[in-house]
Amino acid sequence: MDTRPIGVFDSGLGGLTALRELARLMPQEDLVYFGDTGRVPYGSRSKDTIIRYAQQDVAFLNTFSPKAIVIACGTVSTTALDALRQQCAVPLYGVVEPAARAAAGLTRNGKVGLIGTQATIRSGAYERALSALRPGTQVTARACPLFVPLVENGRFRPGDIVVETVVGEYLEEVKAQGVDTLMLGCTHYPLLREVIGACMGPQVELVDVGAACARWVNAQLAAQDQLAPADRKGSHRYFVSDSTGDFATLASMFLGEDVTGDVEQIDITVY
Amino acid sequence: MDTRPIGVFDSGLGGLTALRELARLMPQEDLVYFGDTGRVPYGSRSKDTIIRYAQQDVAFLNTFSPKAIVIACGTVSTTALDALRQQCAVPLYGVVEPAARAAAGLTRNGKVGLIGTQATIRSGAYERALSALRPGTQVTARACPLFVPLVENGRFRPGDIVVETVVGEYLEEVKAQGVDTLMLGCTHYPLLREVIGACMGPQVELVDVGAACARWVNAQLAAQDQLAPADRKGSHRYFVSDSTGDFATLASMFLGEDVTGDVEQIDITVY
Repeated sequence: MDTRPIGVFDSGLGGLTALRELARLMPQEDLVYFGDTGRVPYGSRSKDTIIRYAQQDVAFLNTFSPKAIVIACGTVSTTALDALRQQCAVPLYGVVEPAARAAAGLTRNGKVGLIGTQATIRSGAYERALSALRPGTQVTARACPLFVPLVENGRFRPGDIVVETVVGEYLEEVKAQGVDTLMLGCTHYPLLREVIGACMGPQVELVDVGAACARWVNAQLAAQDQLAPADRKGSHRYFVSDSTGDFATLASMFLGEDVTGDVEQIDITVY
Repeated sequence: MDTRPIGVFDSGLGGLTALRELARLMPQEDLVYFGDTGRVPYGSRSKDTIIRYAQQDVAFLNTFSPKAIVIACGTVSTTALDALRQQCAVPLYGVVEPAARAAAGLTRNGKVGLIGTQATIRSGAYERALSALRPGTQVTARACPLFVPLVENGRFRPGDIVVETVVGEYLEEVKAQGVDTLMLGCTHYPLLREVIGACMGPQVELVDVGAACARWVNAQLAAQDQLAPADRKGSHRYFVSDSTGDFATLASMFLGEDVTGDVEQIDITVY
């Protein structure tokens, strides 16, 4: 039994798709979310900059004495996890390992597709994890730099020619390779699931990396008897680095429901 | 005669379209450019955050003892100019005043369109400047949040269904209002000139706010006898807040030619 909170962070609000799954699996847990909305996006930045920003994000969440920190950001998970582990005694959970396990378990033909930000694709992190778990897996990777701005502008619905054209272009080669499993390597992408699913066809399994991570964290905490008592109702707190003005509207898009809990702005550069 | 450099900054690399015009008009001037690539974009952030970032950008350029600083960023010009003038003794030139003068001079029917980032449209700065210069001008304004990510991903050419659809949607109401002049209120937008021009039709004048600002700065420096000697060849230096890796490729897209001059990365948060 451990009632300390779980920290969760992302470059922006995409990580709320992972928080949603954490809250669904573990309604008894206190969750503290940080979205670096003053410096979003991370995925088009350099490795050094991503590490520097992520170190501040972790330092901020550490002020809550969490029992675990979830990196609900594909870019940070693939690019900064090793650097973060060197500075942080609290267990850090990224999306790569649990998502690679999910994909390795799902693929039948050994051909896995991967889409993510430029930094994620550049890192090669998913390929390394998959080849350790299932040697010989053939990964076809593609950076999708317009997905995050499209989603953040509320454009992710079927029937939108802009979204469907961009999805079709980005997925063309992944599809041509005959993958039977596609990893949605960024926590913004679950909102595009319907369009991506329609493009890839029903025979292709889609792996939501944030949800896979949430299930993994739940299993790890359970195995270590670190879950809070089941009869408890966890609280949710939200912090952002830009103004809180538009938070509720945007956040509800990612959460799929209204935001409950406080939202505060902090200065992330002091951490 | 004054051989001190001219400082130029933008949230990212869009301001290079203004630098290009400055260099064309004043080849004798030393130009120091700063692009805040570690925190781009500004246009979707809150006013307070934009002011805080812009104050650091100006403080950095002030270390070069410039004779003038050009705010080659529609978002900062519309949202932070007053705050910046309070902290800075060097003349600061934003894009609003010169662009509004250009538009006021061009419009025949008094109906002017304005497109820009969310922060720019929210500010109402262009409307205020236009109504002071030409009372009764009717401004139709529209935020175009996808233009910057599209341009930064190299998508601005005619024939691209994604670009043409987004341009058509954003300009629909501006066009319906019968404007005869359209202000491209962000220094990224000149790259979309061809698509925007085709959408609006040949009877609509397009105002490139960065170029209008460059002409204005040239005229002001000339009037104050602050131009460098005409037989001089100015140097160009570039600074960015993220890695310099992709700078040359991206910058040449905005400059329309190869980058000449040094590129260095700096830590903008210490200013």
